[in-house]
Amino acid sequence: MTVAGVGEFGLIDRVTARLAQGESCLLGPGDDAAVVAAPDRRVVASTDVLVEGRHFRRDWSGARDVGHRAAAANLADIAAMGATPTALLVALCMPADLDPGWAEELADGLGAEAALVGASVVGGDMSASPTLTVAVTALGDLAGRPPVVRSGARPGDVVALAGRTGWAAAGYTVLSRGFRTPRLLVEAFRRPEVPYAAGPEAAALGATAMIDVSDGLLADLGHVARASGVAVDLTREAFEVPRQMRDAAQALGVDPYSWILAGGDDHALAATFPATATLPAGWRPVGRVTEGAGVTVDGAPYAGPAGWDHFRRGE
Amino acid sequence: MTVAGVGEFGLIDRVTARLAQGESCLLGPGDDAAVVAAPDRRVVASTDVLVEGRHFRRDWSGARDVGHRAAAANLADIAAMGATPTALLVALCMPADLDPGWAEELADGLGAEAALVGASVVGGDMSASPTLTVAVTALGDLAGRPPVVRSGARPGDVVALAGRTGWAAAGYTVLSRGFRTPRLLVEAFRRPEVPYAAGPEAAALGATAMIDVSDGLLADLGHVARASGVAVDLTREAFEVPRQMRDAAQALGVDPYSWILAGGDDHALAATFPATATLPAGWRPVGRVTEGAGVTVDGAPYAGPAGWDHFRRGE
Repeated sequence: MTVAGVGEFGLIDRVTARLAQGESCLLGPGDDAAVVAAPDRRVVASTDVLVEGRHFRRDWSGARDVGHRAAAANLADIAAMGATPTALLVALCMPADLDPGWAEELADGLGAEAALVGASVVGGDMSASPTLTVAVTALGDLAGRPPVVRSGARPGDVVALAGRTGWAAAGYTVLSRGFRTPRLLVEAFRRPEVPYAAGPEAAALGATAMIDVSDGLLADLGHVARASGVAVDLTREAFEVPRQMRDAAQALGVDPYSWILAGGDDHALAATFPATATLPAGWRPVGRVTEGAGVTVDGAPYAGPAGWDHFRRGE
Repeated sequence: MTVAGVGEFGLIDRVTARLAQGESCLLGPGDDAAVVAAPDRRVVASTDVLVEGRHFRRDWSGARDVGHRAAAANLADIAAMGATPTALLVALCMPADLDPGWAEELADGLGAEAALVGASVVGGDMSASPTLTVAVTALGDLAGRPPVVRSGARPGDVVALAGRTGWAAAGYTVLSRGFRTPRLLVEAFRRPEVPYAAGPEAAALGATAMIDVSDGLLADLGHVARASGVAVDLTREAFEVPRQMRDAAQALGVDPYSWILAGGDDHALAATFPATATLPAGWRPVGRVTEGAGVTVDGAPYAGPAGWDHFRRGE
């Protein structure tokens, strides 16, 4: 069976039948547009797109994994503003010969990841395309707080991290060398574990800047440093190399810090806090904001590879 | 010059520099997410995707035209709920060898169409892809009114139309036969003229159901009939065939009513109103809602082609 055989409307019916709606969904799929609650009179909105062969491979990740990851990438952006996600919209472009089961499982993954934060898939669009593409838009609510932007870091602030970095990059390296284990690393690539609640918590506790780590910690803190007009210095010993990662790095001949400091796609949250702040649970200090520009590690430029540019990645 | 040469962040800078922000944009591009005003504590949201070779061709439409059409398709969905658009988010997937000027002109078209309704492009994402793809999400505000859904049509209601139908389909036929004129038809395909204000007006004046005509009038009223559990009968003589369309139809050997009744992509608005309602300016009666199921023309099934299925279109 193919999506062309089922047809656009048939596939929309199959997929929407699998989607449970969250509390914020006031009108779900089936109309020209959805209606989503925006209790504080503002809505936070972000779009991220995954393209087959660039952001995922069907032989590396199941459809459900891709759904989890596509949702996570977007939900993390909402959390990084200090907001709570409320809804996802999904544009899905598929080769006409795709098995409709793939789209159904993708929807399951999207819905399951969204449900982790009480959100749901409220709408979308489908089209045939030679290139399998998943574009997701996430919406969220700030609960009365100002958004935490990239430009608020000040010299003297503490740099802190919630969630893990390097795991997805390690899994990517494992898979790209043709292995399927260690399973823990491969699973981390397939389905990031995002500390969603840490975003609103950090906002409530006075975070001055925040970003989700999608391009790699050095690259993403570089965005914060540039937007804030400051420098960031990371403390290398704040990053412990987990045993599984150390073993894999040794076996593959990779410096594990290149995963931890420069690897993307774990969607950890990085934030800056005033030096006097008590860090919320789940956040650990990893560096300092100083006067200047750029990102350093123990006071020196990091010599490894920097973050990924999505036009050049893989070349 | 290519988008790969400019790089992801370089291209994002170039594009966002061209985007003026509307009043509803509280935080625009440059952070993990945008923040948009949602004054009535709800947000209307819709996603539509355009794929090269299926929804547009670069030899038929300029980048600016594609931007206008991608925005219009989404903004019309917001208007069809009775809402006023506030913001667009855009995921753009591009071949690495694309001229960055194409992306810049696309942004100009998106921004210009959004500005027609006071909205703006507040965020987005870019990726390389073998297939040029534009996925747009539109947000809107209901100003305190309930959304006008597809399921509210009742027997006895008047079916009314705002805007034109058949023009984009006629332009598509002209282009697909290798012609570039009549210019009026070709331009209608490139840039739909959507009666945005007619949506909120219809909502305020008691429309019972509404939809934007993207798949063709018969197909889209079929969605309304099915969702409402009613039948729709159109009056053929309510549709005048404009002179330019009649001449082109004759030259091309096409029944112009197949354009008017079954042609998509003009994004007119079709709505049902109680029989006692005074139709708002810009709306004209074109049929009746009755008991039953399906859509007829002068009481009989329409023999011509039905609407487009985006998995089968062009085959």
